[in-house]
Amino acid sequence: MLYLFKELFDKEELLSGRFGVEREGLRTTIEGKLAKTDHPAVFGDKLVNPYIITDFSESQVELITPALKTTEEVYHFLNALYDILALEIGEEYLWPQSMPCDIPDDAYIPIAKYGDSGPWREAREYRERLFKKYGGKKQLISGIHYNFSFDEILFERLYACQSLDISYKDFKDGLYLKVVRNYLRYGWLLVYLVGAAPMTHSSYRKDCTKHPERIGRDGFSNEGAISYRNGECGYKNDTDLFPDYTSVEAYIHSVEAFVKDNMIQSHKELYAQIRPKAKDNKNLLTSIAKQGIQYIELRSIDINPFDKAGISLEDLDFIHLFIIYLLLKEETNYTEWQQEALFNQKNIARLGQQDVRLQKNGEEISRIQWTLDILGEMKNICQTLNLGKEALIDSMLEKSLDATKTYAYQITEKAKEEGYIGAHLNLAKAYKQTAYTNRYKFEGYEDLELSTQILIKEAVKRGINTQIIDRSDNFIELSKGHITEYVKQATKTSKDSYMTMLMMENKTVTKKVLEKHHICVPKGIELTKGQNPALAIGQYEKRPLVVKPKSTNFGTGISIFPEGTSKEDIAKALEIGFKYDDTVLIEEFAKGKEYRFLVIGDEVAGILHRVPANVEGDGIHTITELVEIKNQDPLRGKGYKTPLEKIRLDSSSELFLKQRQLDFNYVPRSGEVVYLRENSNISTGGDSIDYTDSIPDKFKEIAIESARAVGAKFCGVDMMLEDYASETSSYSIIELNFNPAIHIHCFPYKGKERNIGEKVLKVLELL
Amino acid sequence: MLYLFKELFDKEELLSGRFGVEREGLRTTIEGKLAKTDHPAVFGDKLVNPYIITDFSESQVELITPALKTTEEVYHFLNALYDILALEIGEEYLWPQSMPCDIPDDAYIPIAKYGDSGPWREAREYRERLFKKYGGKKQLISGIHYNFSFDEILFERLYACQSLDISYKDFKDGLYLKVVRNYLRYGWLLVYLVGAAPMTHSSYRKDCTKHPERIGRDGFSNEGAISYRNGECGYKNDTDLFPDYTSVEAYIHSVEAFVKDNMIQSHKELYAQIRPKAKDNKNLLTSIAKQGIQYIELRSIDINPFDKAGISLEDLDFIHLFIIYLLLKEETNYTEWQQEALFNQKNIARLGQQDVRLQKNGEEISRIQWTLDILGEMKNICQTLNLGKEALIDSMLEKSLDATKTYAYQITEKAKEEGYIGAHLNLAKAYKQTAYTNRYKFEGYEDLELSTQILIKEAVKRGINTQIIDRSDNFIELSKGHITEYVKQATKTSKDSYMTMLMMENKTVTKKVLEKHHICVPKGIELTKGQNPALAIGQYEKRPLVVKPKSTNFGTGISIFPEGTSKEDIAKALEIGFKYDDTVLIEEFAKGKEYRFLVIGDEVAGILHRVPANVEGDGIHTITELVEIKNQDPLRGKGYKTPLEKIRLDSSSELFLKQRQLDFNYVPRSGEVVYLRENSNISTGGDSIDYTDSIPDKFKEIAIESARAVGAKFCGVDMMLEDYASETSSYSIIELNFNPAIHIHCFPYKGKERNIGEKVLKVLELL
Repeated sequence: MLYLFKELFDKEELLSGRFGVEREGLRTTIEGKLAKTDHPAVFGDKLVNPYIITDFSESQVELITPALKTTEEVYHFLNALYDILALEIGEEYLWPQSMPCDIPDDAYIPIAKYGDSGPWREAREYRERLFKKYGGKKQLISGIHYNFSFDEILFERLYACQSLDISYKDFKDGLYLKVVRNYLRYGWLLVYLVGAAPMTHSSYRKDCTKHPERIGRDGFSNEGAISYRNGECGYKNDTDLFPDYTSVEAYIHSVEAFVKDNMIQSHKELYAQIRPKAKDNKNLLTSIAKQGIQYIELRSIDINPFDKAGISLEDLDFIHLFIIYLLLKEETNYTEWQQEALFNQKNIARLGQQDVRLQKNGEEISRIQWTLDILGEMKNICQTLNLGKEALIDSMLEKSLDATKTYAYQITEKAKEEGYIGAHLNLAKAYKQTAYTNRYKFEGYEDLELSTQILIKEAVKRGINTQIIDRSDNFIELSKGHITEYVKQATKTSKDSYMTMLMMENKTVTKKVLEKHHICVPKGIELTKGQNPALAIGQYEKRPLVVKPKSTNFGTGISIFPEGTSKEDIAKALEIGFKYDDTVLIEEFAKGKEYRFLVIGDEVAGILHRVPANVEGDGIHTITELVEIKNQDPLRGKGYKTPLEKIRLDSSSELFLKQRQLDFNYVPRSGEVVYLRENSNISTGGDSIDYTDSIPDKFKEIAIESARAVGAKFCGVDMMLEDYASETSSYSIIELNFNPAIHIHCFPYKGKERNIGEKVLKVLELL
Repeated sequence: MLYLFKELFDKEELLSGRFGVEREGLRTTIEGKLAKTDHPAVFGDKLVNPYIITDFSESQVELITPALKTTEEVYHFLNALYDILALEIGEEYLWPQSMPCDIPDDAYIPIAKYGDSGPWREAREYRERLFKKYGGKKQLISGIHYNFSFDEILFERLYACQSLDISYKDFKDGLYLKVVRNYLRYGWLLVYLVGAAPMTHSSYRKDCTKHPERIGRDGFSNEGAISYRNGECGYKNDTDLFPDYTSVEAYIHSVEAFVKDNMIQSHKELYAQIRPKAKDNKNLLTSIAKQGIQYIELRSIDINPFDKAGISLEDLDFIHLFIIYLLLKEETNYTEWQQEALFNQKNIARLGQQDVRLQKNGEEISRIQWTLDILGEMKNICQTLNLGKEALIDSMLEKSLDATKTYAYQITEKAKEEGYIGAHLNLAKAYKQTAYTNRYKFEGYEDLELSTQILIKEAVKRGINTQIIDRSDNFIELSKGHITEYVKQATKTSKDSYMTMLMMENKTVTKKVLEKHHICVPKGIELTKGQNPALAIGQYEKRPLVVKPKSTNFGTGISIFPEGTSKEDIAKALEIGFKYDDTVLIEEFAKGKEYRFLVIGDEVAGILHRVPANVEGDGIHTITELVEIKNQDPLRGKGYKTPLEKIRLDSSSELFLKQRQLDFNYVPRSGEVVYLRENSNISTGGDSIDYTDSIPDKFKEIAIESARAVGAKFCGVDMMLEDYASETSSYSIIELNFNPAIHIHCFPYKGKERNIGEKVLKVLELL
């Protein structure tokens, strides 16, 4: 089979597949006790949100990635889900360990809350039955489920090149079942490599394992343990159950028999290390029978306390490689393999750090010897198929030979020093800090515009199905129930008409329409290329004015003369304008400062004012030093990857300071604000300041009316205000923008951070 | 006052103003008899259409231009209205003469039809009363009403520079009334210059003038006549009425007295040569009292039979100049001026071709002498104010000195030869032919895209208020009742969402969405700049394929290989594609021919197929000659000003023919079609062929579904069909276009012309 693979597929094809991870975890208080609060309401209906739900307990979160094309994507998505969760659970933490935190007695363990009817009632009743049968504490054990499906093209091509007298479905089912059987046979190796639950807290059931020793202040363990979760203390059926994995029919038959014999309530209660999965997992058995196995779910992976995601990218990759190995590995005829597999698993779980003796086809073999065999075979596959993953296998080999490299050893050592609760809480605190630092972005989607990342983050949080349709275009699909909405660049949606955008794009039309609605706009005239501008120039000479092309959106080609200027300057400004459009506007200069009103739907979601790059003195540091200090703000970065840009002290700021008799070594007095350049663009280090709550409602209503005049649901209204704090201030609308950035309002330099993503979703009727 | 003007204003300001013309006219049969058909229903409600309504009779049309900024615009608009009307009245003509055509006795003259309630009933009853009082025949006389208002800036600046103790409103009213009085005094000159109604048909009342002589077969006149309409045979009150024009109050008072004394029913029945007009003309007197005079209506201008518009541009200009003269001309104190003015008017009307004696302030003066005085003064004004209109005045001077240059003389001469009916019908027939040749455009708006001209034409026809908002952008405003719709480039409207356009703009998104809706699209893959294309190139080698950038709309950057090609060619094609977008698609080549389905609303409004420039042989002419013949089609022009482009025989067609062993001197056999180039663009002389009625409904439904998938109301669906006539043909949607041209469907080279404008208006809910 290996050589058939080599012949049929190239590396990309072999490594393609669909990956998804579910990560469970307990919410804890800042003392490491099980949280008694409700699952945050922001995540919506627990049966609907595809990303963030509860597991058994109300305090037990489950984070779910979609099926993604690479392990990298899965890893980032898991981190992103962590970031979202961490900032919505207040002072609580997500417990970074499969074995529970400090938990109360059963009577105080809150079962996940659901509604009283239909599927919600069922979900609750199911949990109540589990509670009765297994007790509450065991249900709080959390883990990683690793879902994987091969690329269909692999199976199709394999099937096509052989003349088999079975159907394609049976062929595919057969291969998946082979992986399942081999996973059971060799899964002990994964338990060793990624096992990370070698202890329990003193509040957990002490009787589940023999001779526990105290670890640190509050933990219990036994020498050499790898994974209590995968051992006797773990979550398993009352009796060891061995389903028949020879065919889909046999499998279905055996599981139905368990249910019939009252050993389990339903297929869901069969706690195997691996499960074949269906298109319709609610009716798993009938769905497998009909459409075949769609993917497999690996269930023996512990939460890695040392990784915020709960599993490292390296492990995600190794497990993928391991699955390919399992697909290729020929099977023996030894019949007692399931009992043997269970024995090996438990043995590794309890004492795996030692070189324990394992059973292989009825014969004894040491852990290390068998590991060398398996990893050797995997390396051979890698080389034959040219997969280029030798280094990864080597690092696993090292870990196998040196147990101090296991997560199990390392977390035990940490717990000895910091205590079981302390060690894990310290890790959780650091992860939560990262989540805060990451609040403006969505990990793994950093190539998208910030506004789009913010919207995706809010959508995922709210359980809205989110798909990237065109990555380079920031084009996404959001769906919930029967509503599907497409969004480009966060604010281009179906809620605005094409005409609305065209009206805003054309400054002449914008002005005409606003004037028709009795909204103040700067008075002005329009000049066409070729038209004699002499009359217009004469009329505007020495008057405060702005010259701008009719349809640019980013301030390009605009000249501003707040104090008025000469005929020659106006003529030059016109020349510049005509480079961008065949029509150029001359307008009177509106007095005051410019404010960006972000209108979303029927409200002003944020008001922002921008000021040029600047530093505030402390009487001690030079300008250069003050800039360095200001640039340390994690919201400041380079290349628009963050809401604010780092200030650069370049030749233009040098000149700007020189004109003011200053230089970079000047030490501003305490409280003295020194501006470093003329323009207030965020892209050149400018500051954004939120004014949403300081500007009178009157002007917000004018902004809303302006947007309404062009029929816009999403509109950046640029308003000049002579005195922002006064109801009686003069105002003038200088521009309407049809694709307003939202991130600047979400994460201003000063002032309140606004949740604009939520408002966008509301207008899209997805909330 | 002249020198004050010189000081205050420049030429542009002096010549600015608002102009509007109403042109009445009878519909006639092809024999020159009054048409007995109804006013065409397409023009809609006669009280609502602002452009085309009926006057007194159902067969009497009134064409109305909006108030426009220049005489040129008015002139073109009048022509455009004529074009619209001429093509909607079947085999009838618009009678190009103020005096009626062959009309029946009163009993058979149809009064304009209106509804039975409210304002419609009033309109009908008003006409019935006029009929009773004046008889039907007189009511059929038609004319030109010239509406004019000065630019407000003139009055404002004049008022501002003087310290007057009257209000601005009184000041402005005073100036307008001065023009009115002077118009009455000097209006006889206009009657001479533009008078063009020196005859009546034998069916008209012969008793209205003394000693009529027979002219041609069927006309009556008297030697030297200028305008029967402005003379005894014309339309006037039973008694000569002289309102008081000294002030607005006096005017109102005198008119009210006429009504009170039962001399007239209402102010509308006062048939003066000129009228002051109000903001609300339905309540003229109260409106003038409140808001003052808004503009003046000059009513003594005859229809010029020699101009399709009914008035020449030169005359429009001269009358404007004349009004300026009337504003500046100082008045004398002679009290009997109104009686004198009436005398002069009638005298000129009846005998103006002669140098008749006129009355000036109680003294006799010859027509020519007085004309020399007036035109001399006008020329002086022109020179002083630098208006540059001397040549225009000179040409009027010539006409004054030589009566054979008058329209009156010339139409009389024509009637002598061709008969009264014949002469006018011949003119009308030529105008109608022009209207047909112009059918694809809107005169005066030729700088706009053809699609926009077509939409404007349809909107104006339907009585939808139409305004150009941004000319260079083809941005228009259409309104009717309380609905206002903006349209850019004919098919960019509020009815499509912004997202709809964005989806169509992005080929990746379009394909994904169509696939989701189970619509066939060419299979393909997407490549990003920087990505290694080797795998993709290998996969598509030697297969029929298309390479295209992700988001261009006009076929730029696209390479097509219907027979498949080498890896090198695909790599080159990718390179070309990456010049236009960072993402390029490789798609399988869809078989068959390409058809453009124009979806508007819920229907396919037209289907078009384009073929490359070609000629069909007749066995006689060379290719060069055949091209010349084909290019004579008035639909073929240069530079996209017509629906089709002239074929050019350039080096690329020379090469194309050479490859086929042909040259420009080849004489194709009868029926042989010779193609002249590869590409089928209309812009390079290609032919467009309408297939709307030949393609099975199945594919129309697919096109509609495709548009619906992206939510488009306006969509150009490009479909490949292997066999257009067969239901079972394979198909593939290769592109959706968000701004489909409509003119190509309206005026194809072959096949039925489709009225797409109407369908656009329907989707906009304006019909």
